[in-house]
Amino acid sequence: MDNVIIIGSGPAAHTAAIYTGRAELKPRLFEGFMAAGIAAGGQLTTTTDIENFPGFPEGINGQELMLRMRQQSVHCGATIETKTVTKVDLQKNPFQIFADQTMYESAAVIIATGATAKRLDIKGQDKLWQKGISACAVCDGALPIFRGKKLFVIGGGDTAAEEALYLTKFASRVYMVVRRDVLRASRAMQNRVLNNDRIEMLWRSNIIEAIGETQLTHLKIKNNQTQQEQTLEASGLFFAIGHQPNTDFIGNQLELDENGYIRTQPGNTKTNLPGVFACGDVQDHVYRQAITASGTGCQAALEAERYLSERNEQ
Amino acid sequence: MDNVIIIGSGPAAHTAAIYTGRAELKPRLFEGFMAAGIAAGGQLTTTTDIENFPGFPEGINGQELMLRMRQQSVHCGATIETKTVTKVDLQKNPFQIFADQTMYESAAVIIATGATAKRLDIKGQDKLWQKGISACAVCDGALPIFRGKKLFVIGGGDTAAEEALYLTKFASRVYMVVRRDVLRASRAMQNRVLNNDRIEMLWRSNIIEAIGETQLTHLKIKNNQTQQEQTLEASGLFFAIGHQPNTDFIGNQLELDENGYIRTQPGNTKTNLPGVFACGDVQDHVYRQAITASGTGCQAALEAERYLSERNEQ
Repeated sequence: MDNVIIIGSGPAAHTAAIYTGRAELKPRLFEGFMAAGIAAGGQLTTTTDIENFPGFPEGINGQELMLRMRQQSVHCGATIETKTVTKVDLQKNPFQIFADQTMYESAAVIIATGATAKRLDIKGQDKLWQKGISACAVCDGALPIFRGKKLFVIGGGDTAAEEALYLTKFASRVYMVVRRDVLRASRAMQNRVLNNDRIEMLWRSNIIEAIGETQLTHLKIKNNQTQQEQTLEASGLFFAIGHQPNTDFIGNQLELDENGYIRTQPGNTKTNLPGVFACGDVQDHVYRQAITASGTGCQAALEAERYLSERNEQ
Repeated sequence: MDNVIIIGSGPAAHTAAIYTGRAELKPRLFEGFMAAGIAAGGQLTTTTDIENFPGFPEGINGQELMLRMRQQSVHCGATIETKTVTKVDLQKNPFQIFADQTMYESAAVIIATGATAKRLDIKGQDKLWQKGISACAVCDGALPIFRGKKLFVIGGGDTAAEEALYLTKFASRVYMVVRRDVLRASRAMQNRVLNNDRIEMLWRSNIIEAIGETQLTHLKIKNNQTQQEQTLEASGLFFAIGHQPNTDFIGNQLELDENGYIRTQPGNTKTNLPGVFACGDVQDHVYRQAITASGTGCQAALEAERYLSERNEQ
């Protein structure tokens, strides 16, 4: 039986592995094999340079940062399994974790499976992903390629409104592409967007093609009422149609919120089940940054360590 | 007038500077001049190698990590002032910040002034600081110099009990040096410590000298009842007599807890005053790690950014 099993491969998972490893708990980390459709390392592996992870003044490539964290986990004593966890049984004691037909038992579990940005099926999108197309304005908006350029946001909710407002700092003009003729965002956010003269609304519109050779240059947009198509100059396209937390394998064994995120106690990483902790984007739809995920990974490790030592002494 | 002034020089302060800098807020950061008795960079500058900051698999020197964060803040557009903030007026609008007889005004303030580990006045202590003497078992306990050795903890509260329990993972034996003949720790923690046969209690005792040439080797301990002195072999001495949050300059302008820590809302960095945010150890007496401080620094930056943009649009 393991002391602690960590599920995930991003900054939260590896920070939890580093801390539980140093605490001599011999953690076992399941990084998955193309789990949730992306390589081990999590969402950072789909970005390019990261300028805002503290400690790297010249920026660092997302894959490189995750390789370094993975090395550090191993160095601190973690065992890494390149298998995807498909099922867990959290009612059992010890907890049961299933991966590739094998069952593992553990006294504590840290879930750090993250969330996946929802994408649409737009022609040209895969080719230009991270070449002008991004799923995070706060992460990427300040990059030189977006400065003084025309930037587009897809979505009509609070996140889309917020990303559009954030991008006005950098863009020559921000366009919000909204499928319906109303915003789903809160009244306050609607007012802020609609009163901002640097944001232009494209109502009842769908993006049907992303155009560019090595970098996004134009978007083809169709008005779904008039069926009219137009091609507009575009240096950036930001998806803001939400994220999907990777919690399918949990079923209804943990308390989730209405969007499927794991509910943790405010200010710590405890779930409703003692011994099960959650950290990173799988429980955070507010901050969603590599550094905040790492912070909660450390919290989960310290809380799991305390849980185990109290349990062992009983 | 500034958009945002950041007070502090550790991981929380610099992560806040990196994020507010990238958000084009042109933050001004007061790193202080030997503020709270330590160099700019905060408590990490008093440690040696840090093995648990994610992204540095070979470990990184504390001063080096803080230099890198400082460079990154500047690179992201922060202005750094090497002056100590001596007074703030948070009732004024904009807020007023005083440093070296100069008054600065700012629409938002992020406080990240940290906490200082309390020390006693023990002979030999300054010479052997970080050469066997430490103020953080979780940070340093796993270092090779402490493995399989006799380690001492000073203090009788919950933190001391927790650090002693943590150190049993590494030590050949852990001694708790307690001034009185009872522990101040909670009943549960008392039971855990007193029932652990790897922990020995030295009641009614004071450490009067730390002995060693280049590294701690022995401690001279005096029983304050019998006045008897003994010299014991010791490879590690961990202060666990508490921390002092650096909040003197705030007076009673913000809600503090009974130990002087700034009260923030659970799960975010908002203080009781809108526009004033607190992050890092000045508001955290639970986790107290560089990576958790950085995480809350990022949160404070994102929250300050949102506060300012809502305010500007009103």
